[in-house]
Amino acid sequence: MEAMRYSLLAGGKRFRPVLALATCAALGEDPARLMPTAAAIELIHTYSLIHDDLPAMDDDDLRRGKPTCHRAYGEDTAILAGDALFAEAMRLVCERQDGGGAVQVAVLRELSWATGVGGMVGGQFLDLRDAGLRSADALRLVHTLKTGRLIAASVHVALVLAAPSEEIADRYRRFALELGVLFQIVDDILDVAGSEVVMGKAVGADARLGKATYVSFHGLARARELAAETHGRARALLADVPGSTGDLLDLADHVYTRQS
Amino acid sequence: MEAMRYSLLAGGKRFRPVLALATCAALGEDPARLMPTAAAIELIHTYSLIHDDLPAMDDDDLRRGKPTCHRAYGEDTAILAGDALFAEAMRLVCERQDGGGAVQVAVLRELSWATGVGGMVGGQFLDLRDAGLRSADALRLVHTLKTGRLIAASVHVALVLAAPSEEIADRYRRFALELGVLFQIVDDILDVAGSEVVMGKAVGADARLGKATYVSFHGLARARELAAETHGRARALLADVPGSTGDLLDLADHVYTRQS
Repeated sequence: MEAMRYSLLAGGKRFRPVLALATCAALGEDPARLMPTAAAIELIHTYSLIHDDLPAMDDDDLRRGKPTCHRAYGEDTAILAGDALFAEAMRLVCERQDGGGAVQVAVLRELSWATGVGGMVGGQFLDLRDAGLRSADALRLVHTLKTGRLIAASVHVALVLAAPSEEIADRYRRFALELGVLFQIVDDILDVAGSEVVMGKAVGADARLGKATYVSFHGLARARELAAETHGRARALLADVPGSTGDLLDLADHVYTRQS
Repeated sequence: MEAMRYSLLAGGKRFRPVLALATCAALGEDPARLMPTAAAIELIHTYSLIHDDLPAMDDDDLRRGKPTCHRAYGEDTAILAGDALFAEAMRLVCERQDGGGAVQVAVLRELSWATGVGGMVGGQFLDLRDAGLRSADALRLVHTLKTGRLIAASVHVALVLAAPSEEIADRYRRFALELGVLFQIVDDILDVAGSEVVMGKAVGADARLGKATYVSFHGLARARELAAETHGRARALLADVPGSTGDLLDLADHVYTRQS
């Protein structure tokens, strides 16, 4: 539990839970109602970081300016801390998320789908096998699975709770997709152009590891254009939906302009 | 997916799903109705074996007579295969288990509890830290968490679906506890007295690793007595409950007399 807390409470932007809560608010639903699920998503995100950092995976020593979980607690504890965070995330939704069994199951279905073979884990596998090197489309698929699905799920769980019309839900889903892509493009740009001090981790890792990125495929200038275009599309999708989308648009702006 | 199938379909006794289905039948419910959850439990069990076998954990080369997942596919793939099996297990219950949202959530709550800090993962952590060496009670706690909880959950999920009276449910829960303990005592005996050919894995590993076991604490003769007593208590608990408990009693006998 100490290792779980160490990684979970190491800081981090809380981007996914904030996204879930902001979507909830935009849809006119009290964000407090979605808090257990929003927290569960952060537990899942933390589990994925712990496992991705392992020596057998990306072999990272530093995360959020502190030693990675396995550097602090050993590899065995880090593997188990990740496993347990996943289990406790599911338990949190089962025990704390309100809305009844149908809502809870829909949330858990979304989270298990986003984290399984057709989501986060599948994407991490493809990334480890350098599938993204093949083409720009392949790279986009890797990122859609590895990071996009859980970001999208953060929006989808709010749709489960608020249950808007299908037309409105579709707008939000497309917004979530664009936001996931934007997040990754900016990530790739920051790995080249970011500050190690602000980021709290080593920069230039992608290039050293020969990883495919938006920058390696398109160059830094074009990657910046792609980020601007994606950001524009994300904003446009929410331009005329009803409700108070202000926080959600601010979040999209933050993803676009973030320095870490 | 290949690595997931490799470990999932490597054989194995299917003890946990058979236990779930036999409990379901004993309670007068069609076992076919519980099949998605029974399968999910086997996915979870397989995930735990893959992670436990990793070099950073028990470092095993052989499982069910074949190279362990990480020996066959590499450590990174093995970690991810375990992660994905867990996610897909949850998804299976969300998408396939019938009985409605309340049943699905109760099943998922049981599974997430049995696999988290207060169950399987917590037990594996204590085991890695040799907590069982402290006392016979501590050893029993380690095993209750590490293997007992998921065995108990296999019975509990059938109780969720069949919903018998609290008095009957209590009998089954106590039966499940005894069965979990019996399973572990026999496991420890087989590690000393079993056949490597029949087991499909190296024997004597516990002693070589200096692990606490029922045999190391009590000696082989007393461990065999404990197994007989536990087996007797398990059988007695189901002696006068209504329903067709024949398969379930056979299963308890099999756990007691198994050679692998």
